[in-house]
Amino acid sequence: MPLPERFHDIAKRVNNWGRWGAADEIGTLNLITDEVVREAVGTVRSGRRVPLALPLKQDGVQTGAIPGRMNPLRAMVAVNWQMFGPDTVATSDDVVTMGLQAATHWDGLGHVSHSGRLYNGRPATTVTAHTGAEFGGIEKITSLVSRGVLLDVARAHGVERLPGDHAVVPEDLEAAEELAGTTVRSGDIVVVRTGQMRLYLTGDRHAYAYPSPGLSIRTPEWFHARDVAAVASDTLTFEIFPPEFEDLWLAVHALHLVEMGMPQGQNWNLEELSTACAEDGRYAFLLNATPEPFVGGVGSPVAPVAIK
Amino acid sequence: MPLPERFHDIAKRVNNWGRWGAADEIGTLNLITDEVVREAVGTVRSGRRVPLALPLKQDGVQTGAIPGRMNPLRAMVAVNWQMFGPDTVATSDDVVTMGLQAATHWDGLGHVSHSGRLYNGRPATTVTAHTGAEFGGIEKITSLVSRGVLLDVARAHGVERLPGDHAVVPEDLEAAEELAGTTVRSGDIVVVRTGQMRLYLTGDRHAYAYPSPGLSIRTPEWFHARDVAAVASDTLTFEIFPPEFEDLWLAVHALHLVEMGMPQGQNWNLEELSTACAEDGRYAFLLNATPEPFVGGVGSPVAPVAIK
Amino acid sequence: MPLPERFHDIAKRVNNWGRWGAADEIGTLNLITDEVVREAVGTVRSGRRVPLALPLKQDGVQTGAIPGRMNPLRAMVAVNWQMFGPDTVATSDDVVTMGLQAATHWDGLGHVSHSGRLYNGRPATTVTAHTGAEFGGIEKITSLVSRGVLLDVARAHGVERLPGDHAVVPEDLEAAEELAGTTVRSGDIVVVRTGQMRLYLTGDRHAYAYPSPGLSIRTPEWFHARDVAAVASDTLTFEIFPPEFEDLWLAVHALHLVEMGMPQGQNWNLEELSTACAEDGRYAFLLNATPEPFVGGVGSPVAPVAIK
Amino acid sequence: MPLPERFHDIAKRVNNWGRWGAADEIGTLNLITDEVVREAVGTVRSGRRVPLALPLKQDGVQTGAIPGRMNPLRAMVAVNWQMFGPDTVATSDDVVTMGLQAATHWDGLGHVSHSGRLYNGRPATTVTAHTGAEFGGIEKITSLVSRGVLLDVARAHGVERLPGDHAVVPEDLEAAEELAGTTVRSGDIVVVRTGQMRLYLTGDRHAYAYPSPGLSIRTPEWFHARDVAAVASDTLTFEIFPPEFEDLWLAVHALHLVEMGMPQGQNWNLEELSTACAEDGRYAFLLNATPEPFVGGVGSPVAPVAIK
Repeated sequence: MPLPERFHDIAKRVNNWGRWGAADEIGTLNLITDEVVREAVGTVRSGRRVPLALPLKQDGVQTGAIPGRMNPLRAMVAVNWQMFGPDTVATSDDVVTMGLQAATHWDGLGHVSHSGRLYNGRPATTVTAHTGAEFGGIEKITSLVSRGVLLDVARAHGVERLPGDHAVVPEDLEAAEELAGTTVRSGDIVVVRTGQMRLYLTGDRHAYAYPSPGLSIRTPEWFHARDVAAVASDTLTFEIFPPEFEDLWLAVHALHLVEMGMPQGQNWNLEELSTACAEDGRYAFLLNATPEPFVGGVGSPVAPVAIK
Repeated sequence: MPLPERFHDIAKRVNNWGRWGAADEIGTLNLITDEVVREAVGTVRSGRRVPLALPLKQDGVQTGAIPGRMNPLRAMVAVNWQMFGPDTVATSDDVVTMGLQAATHWDGLGHVSHSGRLYNGRPATTVTAHTGAEFGGIEKITSLVSRGVLLDVARAHGVERLPGDHAVVPEDLEAAEELAGTTVRSGDIVVVRTGQMRLYLTGDRHAYAYPSPGLSIRTPEWFHARDVAAVASDTLTFEIFPPEFEDLWLAVHALHLVEMGMPQGQNWNLEELSTACAEDGRYAFLLNATPEPFVGGVGSPVAPVAIK
Repeated sequence: MPLPERFHDIAKRVNNWGRWGAADEIGTLNLITDEVVREAVGTVRSGRRVPLALPLKQDGVQTGAIPGRMNPLRAMVAVNWQMFGPDTVATSDDVVTMGLQAATHWDGLGHVSHSGRLYNGRPATTVTAHTGAEFGGIEKITSLVSRGVLLDVARAHGVERLPGDHAVVPEDLEAAEELAGTTVRSGDIVVVRTGQMRLYLTGDRHAYAYPSPGLSIRTPEWFHARDVAAVASDTLTFEIFPPEFEDLWLAVHALHLVEMGMPQGQNWNLEELSTACAEDGRYAFLLNATPEPFVGGVGSPVAPVAIK
Repeated sequence: MPLPERFHDIAKRVNNWGRWGAADEIGTLNLITDEVVREAVGTVRSGRRVPLALPLKQDGVQTGAIPGRMNPLRAMVAVNWQMFGPDTVATSDDVVTMGLQAATHWDGLGHVSHSGRLYNGRPATTVTAHTGAEFGGIEKITSLVSRGVLLDVARAHGVERLPGDHAVVPEDLEAAEELAGTTVRSGDIVVVRTGQMRLYLTGDRHAYAYPSPGLSIRTPEWFHARDVAAVASDTLTFEIFPPEFEDLWLAVHALHLVEMGMPQGQNWNLEELSTACAEDGRYAFLLNATPEPFVGGVGSPVAPVAIK
């Protein structure tokens, strides 16, 4: 089932290929200028830091439904090991195996292709088992710091959690913008809250995974119009799942990552942030969400921190 | 060879056990108050972001000399996989195995014990293979953002790189402070540059590892006197290696992690930061160096970003 | 809840400590002499080989209930990689992460301790995160080949599968021996079939795991009396689970591994073997079940092959 | 540099595509019939078992030169963990990460392709990151037991170890056959000893890896003529390395795996076997070298055992 005309129409409208040069590998992150960062820094009032990452552990959000995307398994290679002899200083060391897309993470630009192409028109075949993403690897994102804006769609709807079949549409984003009292602008990292994470946090990872509210196929144009740098959300699937149209599986992924060159964040825990923003009435903040620089990585775990 | 009296004398002087309560698991990070963060934010001028992490890859800094501390191995579990049928959107996924102390990282408070004790007097036996660090796990550090101060000891000495037998002493730190034009204060993250990283960056990981300049046994008291929150450096071993005294292997580790409850950063790449600070004359900056929240982790990779 | 007197009574009766010397690390495998192997070879009639391992894959038998015991995750590090240039020979390479006790496996002598002791009275503390099992590591078993005898308890009972609360007792083993037409003797590897594996093979790993029929606390004395070299079975838990007595969790493990020094095999797929033995009426065969020699390993996956 | 005519000429002569049907996935292993196994069993005289695997450990044979092919890293997820409460039976568990081609192993038929094809003419594209080898995965080899014949080329030459530039040619194999006093025949597993392993065993993994004696491009025809089931050797590269001709890198791999459908064994430790065969004058034995059944695996570690 090839991608329908409807998809290609939107693709044309949001396409950023060549916008930052043929060699560009970071897409919309180019929109984060020094000036944008200075303004982001200017949003800080209290100095309060709000963490947005889930703990990394074996009973993480993955259910096994996505092959290979394993929850973190940490194991010990030394426990109080006295390397230099009895009664000396002892060290403990650990190793981890995990899917780079398993927990709170960014999808890098190598994560998705369609029609044989990655962002900027590069061939999908540049992603290989040997190299990972030769083009657009996550290590190309050496920092990811900007103004973050929480669009708390659940709160704007007056609910704790959007229902599983709720496609977040531009009107939702605008209602949340109104609640936020700020307008999303060029270089922002938009953080969309559905409340879906509450299902995982209360112990039901299967309900969390599926069905899931999420971004509508109509939102990429909205993000594109505002020149957003990146978008993150509190769901496993990012976009509504199952999708709005039977022939549009992962269409938002393809529009963001391939057409726009815009990283996506998934499994972000926005519960504390939602409360904090509601309390102080400020939905914009300095957000640091720099990924780990895995060379060739198609994604990376991230421990985002909002500074308010 | 048990720890000598000399060690225990210093230990008594820098000990923070109980200072933030018997239940405390984050030690000197308690010194990072909202006010400290506000002041850190106030150091930002240009909005320039300087990344301090090494790329995560198989030919990382580890030489194999420390058993189990393996360089990151990233492998693919999907490459352009069309999960929903031919001609649909394709995804690539990767997994990683790595030592949590292998690359640019923080040592957490569970990483080191001496005399059977961890920070705050907890038994070393609370670190187990089953749980990792039950006490002081790296996930307890939910954010690590503060004022960073680069103490560029190599530059203060007028050299590109300190020799391998140079123990960085308080006088060195003060000379670097003078160069920096700022005084280290409570809650700061001190970033000590030796230039040793240049050896790795030019291709010799063995020379980088050993012998290595690094912090002297005399420095923990200096950090303690100034109530530093955390210290990071551009070496594998952090402290001078081989050590200043035959009976003091890993003594600085033990003083920082066990006695003071202060996280340590290793393998930070400070070369770009050194140049940037020298250019604009500003050695203090907003530093975000939040670890990945591995539950029970005795350490974590980190992708620190200085915002100037 | 310490181990009860009942346990210690049996322990005394089956104890093999010192039997093969204080330095011995392979326990009952000493019973496999060259002569035993020659006789095992003598059982071969048809040359038919029957494999007893489950396929190694992500949806293996582990349910997540045993922390850290992860099903195999195989990932690619090269797919048709032309290392020597375009149009040359291409290679594919893979890596795996897995629990050594996750699939069809042997428990080595380091896998279990009780009362602070391993087999042969060695301190349990000789198992460390740094070394694994310093004593009794699975690599000490350089070969594991002997006469195998299938004791098909399910078939002897005329059922496809024993119920979940069936404790396999000596009388069951003797009924199966009668069905087998052979007497278990010194150096044999006894393979006990409950039929429980059918639950996994038909798709229900949870039902397979628990509750599970398995060996009764009464069987170690039977195995000891006959000087069996090793015992394997077609369940996850090996012994009946939940156990026969509330204070005897993993008691059979402790008797076999610690007291007798006898390796145990779990998750063996005995379905084809059961049919083959019933067809030709021969329940004794040459069995090769040599583990992978992981240095310090407390267990190992194994791909046993019965040669009939 | 595409494969030369010389290669294609040999390829035509040794090609087995279609020989065992279009659906066949195990190639020359079809030659191991029940009768072959019965005769193999008939070679056993003493019952002595000789293990041929190297210990699996971090300082294994891999030097890092082949990306991703990592030596085994075993880590603990439990050490004497009392799952059921204080003073109960305690368990230790471990996990491993390793390259499936890193240690003593078999190359499966999915390991190599040339000209876009795998064995039996299947497209190389059937090997994917998502599935591994869909065709010819190592799990298709459910047992690998046959007559083994040691061709001790080093001993036949009267040396401990062949020099690094020695290409093992058919004349070498025939000299070793004469020493062995047996003729290689259909279904045999041929084990070729060069003595190169002594370099690794005496501590020099780099010298072991390269340069390396190994099979000449002339040997596949010899193996094909005798209908050998599989060939294993005591080197890292299997074939002479660097190769005999500049345009024939990995040509023996391609002929064996792609054209003949014959598995290859590498890094086998043949030192004890060499001595044992010289002592008793018998170079044929029962060999069990069944791989671990990794689904989709392009190779597998193996712990081969010769029974004499």
